[in-house]
Amino acid sequence: MRILGIDPGYAIVGLGVIDYIPHKFNVVYYGAIFTEAKTPFDTRLGEIYTDMINVIEKTKPDIISIEKLFFNTNQKTGIDVAQARGVIVLAGQQKGIPIHEYTPLQVKQSVVGYGRAEKHQVMEMTKQILHLKSMPKPDDTADALALAICHAHTQSSQLNYLNKLNLINKR
Amino acid sequence: MRILGIDPGYAIVGLGVIDYIPHKFNVVYYGAIFTEAKTPFDTRLGEIYTDMINVIEKTKPDIISIEKLFFNTNQKTGIDVAQARGVIVLAGQQKGIPIHEYTPLQVKQSVVGYGRAEKHQVMEMTKQILHLKSMPKPDDTADALALAICHAHTQSSQLNYLNKLNLINKR
Repeated sequence: MRILGIDPGYAIVGLGVIDYIPHKFNVVYYGAIFTEAKTPFDTRLGEIYTDMINVIEKTKPDIISIEKLFFNTNQKTGIDVAQARGVIVLAGQQKGIPIHEYTPLQVKQSVVGYGRAEKHQVMEMTKQILHLKSMPKPDDTADALALAICHAHTQSSQLNYLNKLNLINKR
Repeated sequence: MRILGIDPGYAIVGLGVIDYIPHKFNVVYYGAIFTEAKTPFDTRLGEIYTDMINVIEKTKPDIISIEKLFFNTNQKTGIDVAQARGVIVLAGQQKGIPIHEYTPLQVKQSVVGYGRAEKHQVMEMTKQILHLKSMPKPDDTADALALAICHAHTQSSQLNYLNKLNLINKR
């Protein structure tokens, strides 16, 4: 299963593609889409859309794992991140890729095993799980890889659960 | 000048297209895009995008006038409205239509002449200005027409201001 993890944003969109077969990860690609602050906002959305379509066409993911948004104190930024996220989700939908979303709590729980883990702990575990020599930069890229791991772990544990149910039912 | 007014949303997108030559309005089209609550959110975004592209291709607006978003108490709804707005803005950008945004205060000020006007006053004035026999439904459609009027008035007063400056400079 090939998973495209996405950390949504309008200035930086973090991207990480991994192949996963139970308990084995292979990093296919990671990087980020950057848009310039001086570019008009509608053009930035257009650039994000085009780059997302390109990444999906080149990496051919089976599923997308994207961060669920919550609003903090900066409403202006929050609105623009949500607008960019809409465009990212649209690109996935148009390419027929199923989209799963996870909260930061779910990502921490799944990657570190502890929902209140610090950001640097999530990054360290992401690096270890994927056997990376150095931490991917920017942080948004590391977050995107963590989202991809989160989906792999979540689906894997759901499969285990279903298998166990199946074994129980067969008894 | 043909103006496409848009009241953004994910369940209902209000749309209103008017032609404007100073002090004369002609209604070209009004309506709304509806998406079903039971449809997956990414599919709803896809439907909004497709319908927006169709409306733009059919009505060929010169500019888009869309509501600027602010967040209220319902953050969940706010995030999803912003995601839908991102997709709407993308459609306009891809079709090369310049996008102007106005706050609800600016719309009230421009349509009623009073920034604290009630919603029903805005609707009544919209109906009068456009010589409509009845109030367009849903309300989102009336709001979209008000946004189109707002852009027409705003641009018109800016032109007047520039003309006056020009006259003064010529003295």
